[in-house]
Order: sequence, then structure tokens, then C-alpha cells
Amino acid sequence: MENALFKQDWRSNRKIQIFQYIFMKWTFCFLIGLLVSLVGFFNNLAVENIAGLKFVVTSNMMLARRFVAAFAIFSSSNFALTLFASLITAFIAPECAGSGIPEVKAYLNGVDAPAIFSLRTLLVKIIGSISAVSSSLNVGKAGPMVHTGACIAAILGQGGSKKYGLTWKWLRFFKNDRDRRDLVTCGSAAGIAAAFRAPVGGVLFALEEMASWWRSALLWRAFFTAAIVAIVLRALIDVCLRGKCGLFGKGGLIMYDVTSADIPYHLWDVPPVILLGVVGGILGSLYNSLLEKVLRIYNLINEKGTFFKIILACCISICTSCLLFGLPWIASCRPCPLDPSEPCPTIGRSGNYKKFQCAPGHYNDLASLFFNTNDDAIKNLFSKNTDAEFQHSSMLIFFVTCFFLSIFSYGIVAPTGLFVPVIVTGASYGRLVGMLIGSRSTLNHGLFAVLGSASLLGGSMRMTVSLCVIILELTNNLLLLPLIMLVLLISKTVADAFNGNIYDLIMRSKGFPYLEAHAEPYMRQLTVRDVVTGPLRLFQGIEKVANIVHVLKTTGHNGFPVVDEPPFSEAPVLVGLILRAHLITLLKKKAFLHSPMPNFSDAFKGFMADDFAKKGLGNGDRIEDIDLSDEEMNMFVDLHPFINTSPYSVVETMSLAKALILFREVGLRHVLVVPKIPGGVPVVGILTRHDFMPEHVLNVHPLSLRSRWRRLRFQWPSWSKIF
Amino acid sequence: MENALFKQDWRSNRKIQIFQYIFMKWTFCFLIGLLVSLVGFFNNLAVENIAGLKFVVTSNMMLARRFVAAFAIFSSSNFALTLFASLITAFIAPECAGSGIPEVKAYLNGVDAPAIFSLRTLLVKIIGSISAVSSSLNVGKAGPMVHTGACIAAILGQGGSKKYGLTWKWLRFFKNDRDRRDLVTCGSAAGIAAAFRAPVGGVLFALEEMASWWRSALLWRAFFTAAIVAIVLRALIDVCLRGKCGLFGKGGLIMYDVTSADIPYHLWDVPPVILLGVVGGILGSLYNSLLEKVLRIYNLINEKGTFFKIILACCISICTSCLLFGLPWIASCRPCPLDPSEPCPTIGRSGNYKKFQCAPGHYNDLASLFFNTNDDAIKNLFSKNTDAEFQHSSMLIFFVTCFFLSIFSYGIVAPTGLFVPVIVTGASYGRLVGMLIGSRSTLNHGLFAVLGSASLLGGSMRMTVSLCVIILELTNNLLLLPLIMLVLLISKTVADAFNGNIYDLIMRSKGFPYLEAHAEPYMRQLTVRDVVTGPLRLFQGIEKVANIVHVLKTTGHNGFPVVDEPPFSEAPVLVGLILRAHLITLLKKKAFLHSPMPNFSDAFKGFMADDFAKKGLGNGDRIEDIDLSDEEMNMFVDLHPFINTSPYSVVETMSLAKALILFREVGLRHVLVVPKIPGGVPVVGILTRHDFMPEHVLNVHPLSLRSRWRRLRFQWPSWSKIF
Repeated sequence: MENALFKQDWRSNRKIQIFQYIFMKWTFCFLIGLLVSLVGFFNNLAVENIAGLKFVVTSNMMLARRFVAAFAIFSSSNFALTLFASLITAFIAPECAGSGIPEVKAYLNGVDAPAIFSLRTLLVKIIGSISAVSSSLNVGKAGPMVHTGACIAAILGQGGSKKYGLTWKWLRFFKNDRDRRDLVTCGSAAGIAAAFRAPVGGVLFALEEMASWWRSALLWRAFFTAAIVAIVLRALIDVCLRGKCGLFGKGGLIMYDVTSADIPYHLWDVPPVILLGVVGGILGSLYNSLLEKVLRIYNLINEKGTFFKIILACCISICTSCLLFGLPWIASCRPCPLDPSEPCPTIGRSGNYKKFQCAPGHYNDLASLFFNTNDDAIKNLFSKNTDAEFQHSSMLIFFVTCFFLSIFSYGIVAPTGLFVPVIVTGASYGRLVGMLIGSRSTLNHGLFAVLGSASLLGGSMRMTVSLCVIILELTNNLLLLPLIMLVLLISKTVADAFNGNIYDLIMRSKGFPYLEAHAEPYMRQLTVRDVVTGPLRLFQGIEKVANIVHVLKTTGHNGFPVVDEPPFSEAPVLVGLILRAHLITLLKKKAFLHSPMPNFSDAFKGFMADDFAKKGLGNGDRIEDIDLSDEEMNMFVDLHPFINTSPYSVVETMSLAKALILFREVGLRHVLVVPKIPGGVPVVGILTRHDFMPEHVLNVHPLSLRSRWRRLRFQWPSWSKIF
Repeated sequence: MENALFKQDWRSNRKIQIFQYIFMKWTFCFLIGLLVSLVGFFNNLAVENIAGLKFVVTSNMMLARRFVAAFAIFSSSNFALTLFASLITAFIAPECAGSGIPEVKAYLNGVDAPAIFSLRTLLVKIIGSISAVSSSLNVGKAGPMVHTGACIAAILGQGGSKKYGLTWKWLRFFKNDRDRRDLVTCGSAAGIAAAFRAPVGGVLFALEEMASWWRSALLWRAFFTAAIVAIVLRALIDVCLRGKCGLFGKGGLIMYDVTSADIPYHLWDVPPVILLGVVGGILGSLYNSLLEKVLRIYNLINEKGTFFKIILACCISICTSCLLFGLPWIASCRPCPLDPSEPCPTIGRSGNYKKFQCAPGHYNDLASLFFNTNDDAIKNLFSKNTDAEFQHSSMLIFFVTCFFLSIFSYGIVAPTGLFVPVIVTGASYGRLVGMLIGSRSTLNHGLFAVLGSASLLGGSMRMTVSLCVIILELTNNLLLLPLIMLVLLISKTVADAFNGNIYDLIMRSKGFPYLEAHAEPYMRQLTVRDVVTGPLRLFQGIEKVANIVHVLKTTGHNGFPVVDEPPFSEAPVLVGLILRAHLITLLKKKAFLHSPMPNFSDAFKGFMADDFAKKGLGNGDRIEDIDLSDEEMNMFVDLHPFINTSPYSVVETMSLAKALILFREVGLRHVLVVPKIPGGVPVVGILTRHDFMPEHVLNVHPLSLRSRWRRLRFQWPSWSKIF
């Protein structure tokens, strides 16, 4: 945005202010890192203690063979926790439902969904996530942590929460979108870093999946934030290792220290790994498409009202409790190994050998998986030297149950993540494959479980470098790298042939106008002129107040071209672009003129650049809130000092594809379309994000549907033509 | 580029061609990965065998106490190898001198330096790098590997080498800059991946340091390329582990397996680590500024002629040999430890306990460092449980020698890298600090060496995530992560206060017009109108051949605006932009008209889009090579079908900063400047990369120098004013 007022403001900035600005940027990153790591630690501590207490109580009852009481306590505590999570979500902050990653991703692309970053959302997300995860629902905490991180960053960036009076003047430094987006990117990096204790993975996740624009300086700041998270977490865990955190065990913050020894693998291990990747890719895309369908059904239910939402969540909780408690009864008891590496049967909370209903000296392998938190289940699956521990049937049951439970649990009205469920499901799938291959491979089953997780993550989330690094940081073994890369490559390639990234699917189903970085082929056939629709709303350089109010009330546009016409200029001249928010500020300040004559002297009088600073999300004024008398309505406003005099513009014959590149790469909100042949109106239209949406374009030009090219995906109808 | 011809070409592309295009992209990435890993492996194998043979022969002579003969053989073989490297570099491909990373980085920014990617360059770079590294010069192989990778990618991308007749039609798929740049990015990722066996680090290096534009799809392809490298290298090393690679030992490809055990570190270890980071940052910036000064002196010598260049290289080689052989005599012999983990004194090539001149049962610690390849020296420095092995004085001597030798070795006329020398120097510095701190820290000295390397790398290269991952992959220990992040953060911050990234300094000293991503503050004060200089060269839509030839011969511009004037239009209309290369093709094809009348029917006759495809670097035609008769000179050309009719344009009042963002983010080569008030000439100028260079801008507007803001760097003159 360049207008005369901001330019003057910039010129008045002195070196000390620039220094202050840079200093604040880094301070904010530090604060974000600190707060996110504290929240992440608290989150883990709470989950480990609540869920741990629940499992200790029920396990003790099981040991005492009071099975009905154990089930009653287990299911009722799960029910209560789920109910609590869904109640606070549904009544206090409905924006918290789901993982939050799609919302943050859309925000970073430039879509301002309302209220996703309020203080209320933050609190509900943290508490709701803790109780949802503790309630044994098959949901994760990574997604909510990302949203939490982004929330913390956004609230700091807009200078506190205005609604609750928690604002600080010294925090209000970042007046523009870009600085706030940068902070939110750092926040989401910190979120993953805190959830998985994977700082580098977090930075890469923010880079690969979240951010739409990225600069080297931002990488550096995100790295700083993630480093703070890593250091603070490391210090806090040091405290916990001294046993001051209740049931929070050693390595309670996820880090599955799989295999510290050297892993030998050879050329003949590659075919099973490739198979794992291919099937994982297919499963991942199946997962995505099932999830999308379930979400569509859930939306129908959720639309009926808050009551139905909560009922749905409660149903899922009851089903989950029944399955978790009921399915282990199917599995046959197995005798404890002669030389177990840990006590068998397990005493207390977590461990590989749950006794469940078995006789002394025996354990129930399915209960070791089901009757645990997800983190512990992953630890059991990833652990080495346990190749004989699980039965084929148990693993199959566990895999199928996890697969469907995670699909059905995501859409409920509570903070739910997808990362951990996908990791559990993938681990059980990989371990199953490993067990089927058996001794024909030198890889141990724990390693197969890791690769299985990688394949399902790759097939569902479709990230590359970031997933690779996250898995490496989770398992703490770099020697796995070539195998993990191979699996990710294959599963992503296979899955990409069927459908899109899970977050993109969710975003599309939520209707966010997400702007892709690449242009679709039909966009090359169309010019920008072709997609500009609707009547163009123009303002004069000196405009009547009534006109402004009328236009603002009748349209929802956020930017308007301003044209000077005779007698103020010789010919119609495009002066620039003015924003809705700035017009509203002008109207609110009532700096009106009695006659349509420019006033050069005191244009800035009574205005400060701060008045035009970007408001926090949802804090902007609305035109309906401004009262103007009839007399004022007939006065005039000189818009000139507040116009962005050099907006980006494209010529009307430019192809839509080329305009999209400009729009997306520079990160614009509006681009003006100017005529090819001068003379006549100096502007023919204005393009916004919505004009590039495939739905809009295909609506205007249905014929171009034919040349829509969906990244060469296998589409069953087109395939069926071949046969 | 959008012109009528390309548009027609695109429309004729069918689905199968799109599929072919995508398939080729991936095939190319596969080929790049395969070739780069083979080259990297061959490179290592050759160095290990050549240098290994040299050390075995001289060590054996030393054991036999024939010191003079040993020195003669050592120094003469070093001299011969250096001479060979500098001869082929100086006479065959002078572009190969140095690391090549600055050139590749500039290319990816849009600066086409001539001949940096020819087949000749590739071969000389590979062979020269092998002999330079084998000759015990303190130079690395990582930089040359990046250049090699980029070279392989570029040669594949432009469809082979035209000069040597090695072209394949099926390879000529990538007609535009973007596709070629993408391949080169993948190639440089593969280079680092092959040099350090650090695939993820390679991808991040390409992203953080090399690429100026980056898309998610590119990340995915770079990851694929790096994964191929990782898998191929892993397979080749499997072969070597069976002992079929001569002197190529276990883990010959760098991977310093430092500490497989758990590393305990506590809060009181943080202050020494911070100290290490601060001093490392200062040393790194000192390193950069000394290197820059030495390069300036070397440039004066090198300008005098090829003979002087080679003399310089030979002098450095002789000095290096003398230092490496002479300095260990200073160190006192130490008795072998009572319970050594490996034979003492070392027999054969590498090892921690070199006997050198010592009596039996003793070893020379300085010789263990100097009288080894750099890789082995790093291994010795990084190794654990060797805290008592080195003396303070030896370590200090080694550090100082490495520091200066690497600065003086970089600028010689041979392929020289900076990574490995900086790692060695940093490791010795870190180990020295560790020895000085002694038992006051629980960290072992090997760990201090790793952190020292990180601090010097951070202080000199100024990368964050990529360096962090490269070091993790080198040392294969993820538990170090928080400490490495801390050290990198501190050293980069400290060093950034003094000067720039080493590659940027080298690029600036080479005079590449590198376009930064951020705008400097004075650019906000200037409009694009202010920097447009020189007479504007316009063409008419139907232009006389003689005019075109004259303009092309008298200017060096690469793009020209085209304007239709009456009688062809009612008023002067800006039609678009035409490229020099396209004009030359038109002249070469001699599709001339006898009268200045448009011909709509057969405009495309005789032209194919391939004719206008971007030529390989340095393969373009020149205007001087085209012969035109007088009659032809008086004919006309209809430019319309070849004009890019929708070039990006900015209004003349736009600030330079805003135009720079557009230019840089969209990756433009030209941007047209149009007047604010219509009527008159429809275009007032054309901006190119050179117009944004600070030198140009400050030349035109010397007053804005005052507000030049050098990222808040400490500048001694301005500091001295305070006192």
C-alpha cells in the first residue's frame, strides 16, 4: 500500500524506530517460542496425567478382575472428557473444531476467516485438545498445537485481544498483513516443534505445507522460534526426568527412540519397502477420500444445531470406549516371553505387556495396543526386539479399527488432530506387513512400523522433506533416511494419482478461496478481460459522501478504483485504488468538505498512519455502525491523500494464467485491469482472489471445462473409456 | 512470455504431450540424481586413492626414517597435482576456478554468466577438483560438487552440448528459463547430497542458499533427486564395504559417526556453548572479510596473465607442503596411551596416532592432524574418548594454520571449495575451546569440535536450517540438535552484525548483478521514473529492417517496447515487448515484407515455436553474424505475431521498492514503465535488473546515499563519531 499518508509516515521514521521494529520482531519470535513450548509441555503433562490416571485406575481394577467396574469407569471418564471438550467447543468457540491446520493455511494464503485467532479460540483449543486427547478418542494433538501456535502469534501480532481489554500499546507494532503473516508462520512452526519435539521438522512443515509466501529472512526467524522451543522443552524435560511431573514418564513428549544400534539393510530389503510404499499410498488416498465423505455427512448432521453436534461427539466417544475395551477380549492370551526386557505383565500405566483379562504370566497383545494412549501405542509398535510379541490377527484388528476410528473421530465438534492417528494407523499397517513378510527381510518389525507410518503420512498429508525430517526427529535415527525417503516418494506419487492433500480437501470442503500457486491450463486460454464480471464501482477523486455510503452498503468489495475526470483533469485519469477500510475510517473521522474542491493544505490534519493500520481480524469497523446526518451526506471527501497511487495493474489482454502468477507471487488482494487501447474509461475492472477460483471461471466460461487438467489424475470415467 | 506464436503452440499441445513433459521432468531429475551420485562417488574414490597412496608411501618412508625422501615425494606429488589442476583450469576452462556456488547462485537469480555450464567446464571441474583436493591443498570438494551437479543439470536441460555435437532431440524438452532453473536447483541439491551424504541437507541448502524462487513442486522434485543420490550412494558404499575400492575405507564418503551413545548435557554447559558461538561468529566474519581482501589481491595478480595465475597456485602448493610437513616437527612426541582403542602408532594411511618422527611407542599429535586428508583430520577431531590425545599448543598451531591456509588457497586458479576447510578450521577451534574449558564442562572435546564447526560455518556461510541439518547428517546424532541450533543462531547473529554471507561477498566482488529479495529503504523514496535513464529504443509494429539492425547493433538491451502509431492505429498504442533473441531469429529467417503492410495470413509460415525456444547459455546467435543485403535492409518486418502482447508494466509513479518486489517475486527480466497521464508516448521506459542495482541508483541519485541503510551493521566510521 502506497499512499501519501503512509509515505509521509515512513519518511518520519528514524533509525531508532527501524531498530525498534527489528528488535520487536525478534522479541516476538522469542515470546512465541517460549509460550508455545510452555503450552506444548503443559498440554503433554496434562494428557499424560489425566489419561495416565484413567489407565492406572482401570488397569488396577482389571488386575483385580473387576471388569464391569473397570469398563464403567473407563467409558464414563471418556464420555465426560469428550462431552466437556465438545461443550466448550460448540458453545464458546466453534472455530476450534477440527485440527485448525486448514484454517491457518488459508489465513497464510490470504483468506481471513473470522475469529480463528481470538483469545477465546486459543483457550478453548488448548483445553479442548487436552480433554479430547485424554478421552481416548483417536485424535491427535499436533494439529491443535499448530493452531495454538498460530493463535498465540496472531494475538501477539495484533497487540493483544481488544475484546477483553488485554491490549498493550508497545505490542502494537505490526500494522500490516505481511508482518502478521510472518509471525503466524513462525507460530505454526513452533506448534509442530512443540508437539513432536521436532524443531527442524516444524520449520520445514511451516515452509512446505503452511506458508504461501516465503523469504529467506522468514526461514531464519522460524528457525529461531523453533530453536527456542527445542531449548525450553529440553530444559523442562530435564526437570521432569527428576520425577516431578506425576505420571509424565521418561520421554513423555513424543520421541520414540527406536533403534540406537546400527541398522543393516540390503538390496533385497528394497522390494518389500517399495510394496509398503505403494500400498501405503493407496491407503492414504483412500483415507483422504473417506474422510472427505464422512465430513460431508457430518456437516449435514452438524448443520441441524448445536445439540446434534454434541450428540454426535458423544456417540463417537461411546463407540470408541466400547471398541477399545471390547476388542481385546477377542485376542487370545499369550504367555510372557521367558526373558522379557521389561516386566511382564506390565504393572502400572504403559508398557508392552498388558495383562487385561489374562491369567497370571500371560498378556493380551491387543490390549497392549488399545488400552494405552496413542503415544504409548506408537512406542510399542516402533519398539525393536519385539518381533514375536504381536499376533497377526491382533495387528489386523488394531489396524482396521484405528483406520476407521480416526476417520470417524476427526469431524466431531472438538479440537482434533490428524497426525498422531495417521502415525498409529500407519505403524500398525507397517508392522502387519512386516509380520507377513516375516523372516524374508532383515528389517525388524519396529522398523517396518516406522516405514508404515511414513507411507501413510506420505499418502495422506503429501509432504516430503518436512515429513521425512519429522519422522527422523521422532525416531532419532538418521540411518533410516534413505529408506524413509524412498517410502515417502513412492507413497506420495501413488496417492497423488488419486486425490489431493488432506488439508486441501478439508479446505475445499470448507469453501475457503485458496489460491493455488500454479495456473490451470484453461487459464492460459482466457484473458483477464474474460473473467471480469459485474458492474465496476468507481469513485471520483473528490466524491460525495452519499455515494460512498451507498456503494459501501450495496457491495462487499474491499477495494475501489478512483478516477479523476474533467474538470479536475484533462482526460479521465486513473488515480489509484482506495480500500474499503480506509474509506470507513475517513467517514468515521468526518473530514468532509463543503464543496468539491481539493484542499492541499490540511489533508493530513487529524489523521495518523495508525488510524489506517490494519485492524485485527474481526475488529474492523463496519459501514453500518457509522451515523451520518443528511447534511453530512451531501458533503464531499477528498480521497487523494489516501489513495494508493501506484496499484499493480495488468492489461486486459493478459492471460489469466499470467495474471494469477503476478497475483499469487506478489501476494496481492486486488489488481486493476486497464484497457489495451487508451482513451475512454481508464480502468475496465478489478480482479480479486475470487475471480481466479476455478468455480468462478468455469461458471463464466463453461466451455473451458473441457480443457481442465487435473494434474493427470486417474479419473475413473476417463479410464473406463479406454476399455 | 506470451506471444501469438507461443499461444498457438500451446493450444496445439495435447494431453499426451503434457504427460510427456511431466514424465521428462521426473526422468531428468532421476538422471541428475544418478549422474551426480556417480560423480560424487568417483570423486571420493579418486581422492581417497590418490591422496591415500601418497600418504601411505610417505608414511612408510617416515617409518623408515628417510625424512628427506619423504618430503621430496610429498611435496613433489602435491606440486604436480596442483600444477595439473591449475593448468587445466587456466587453459581449458577458467570458469572452473573457485567453488562455483556463487556462479550457480547468480544463475538461479537470473544472471547468465557465460560458459559456466558447458561440458568443458563440467569435465575440468570434476578432474580439477579431484587433483586439487588430493594435492593436500586446504580446499574442499563440496562447492565443486554443487557446481558439477548444476552443470550436469544444465547440460541435460539444454539437451546436451551443442558445441561437441552431443545433442539428443528427445532431451530438448525444456524451452524456457524456468524449467532449466528448476533443474539446476535440483542439481545443486544433489551436489551437496553427494558431497556430504546429506540428502535432506542438500535439499535445504538448495532452498536456503541457492534458489531465488521456490515452489512447493520444486521442493518435491529436489527431494526426489536427493533421495536418488542417497539410495545410489548407499548401494555403492555397500559394494565398497566388501573391500573392492582400494584405499577407500569404511565411511570414506564423509560421515563422522561421532557419538552413538547418549549425550548428557546440562544447563551449566550452556555458557561455554554461547561463548563458542560468539567467538565463532566473530571468527567467521573475520574469515569472510580476510577472504574478500585476499581475493582482491589475487585478482590483481591473476589479471596479469595465465602464467602468473599458475605461478600463484604453485607457490601456494609449495607453502602448503612445507607447512604440513614442517610444522609437526615443532610438536613434542607423546607416549602412546596404555589402552589405545586403535593401534598406536598408526600403521598405514589414516588414524589418530601418526608416528612421524617420533620414537617407537610414541606419536606426534600434530602430524595426526596435518599429515592426513581433511576428511580424516575432521574424523580425528570429532572423535570421542580422545580428550587426552592432543596438546594445547598443537591444536592452536593447527587452527591458525588451517585458518590462513584456507583463506589463501581459495582464490587460486583451480576448483576449490570452502565447506570442508571451514569445517576443519571450526573443528580445531572448537576442540581448542573445549580443551581450555577442560573438565569444567561435561561435554567431551569431540562434541566441542562439532559445535566449533557449526559456529564457524554459521559465522561464514550464514545459513540456518540447512547447515543444521547438514551437520546432523554428518555427525549422525540428533540429540545434538538443540546445542547446534543455539550455536548457529548465535554465530550467525554475531557475524551478521559485521558483514555479509561469504557467497554474497564473492558474488559482489565478481560483479554479478544479483537482485536481492528485499528493498533498501532509499528505494521507497524514489519512483521508477527517477531511475529510468538513457534514450528509450522503441520499435514500430511494422518496422524497417535497417532500423532493427541499427538498434540491435548499437545497444545491448535484451527487450524493446513495440508501439503502433498512426496510421496503423488511431493513437499511439503500446503493443507489447519483443526480445532481442526473437528479433535476431526473425532477421535470420528473413521473413521480410516489401511494404509496411500487415500480413495476417501467413505470419507463422516458416516459424515454429522451437525457433524461439531459449537457447543454451552462450549458444545464442549474434546480430553480427547475420548478413543482410542492401535490398533486404530496406524491407520491413511485421513484428506483431512475435510480440509479447501483455508484458508486465508499472505506472511511472510507483516507488522503486514496490517495483523491485514485483520484479523479483515474479522473476522478470524487463518491466515496462507506462505514464500516469495517458496521451503522448504510451511508454516512458523499460526497467531491467541493472536499474535496481544500488550502484546504478546511487549513481543517478547520489543524495539518497544518506538514507542507505545497511541492515544496521556496525560500521566503524559511524561508531567512531559517537566517541
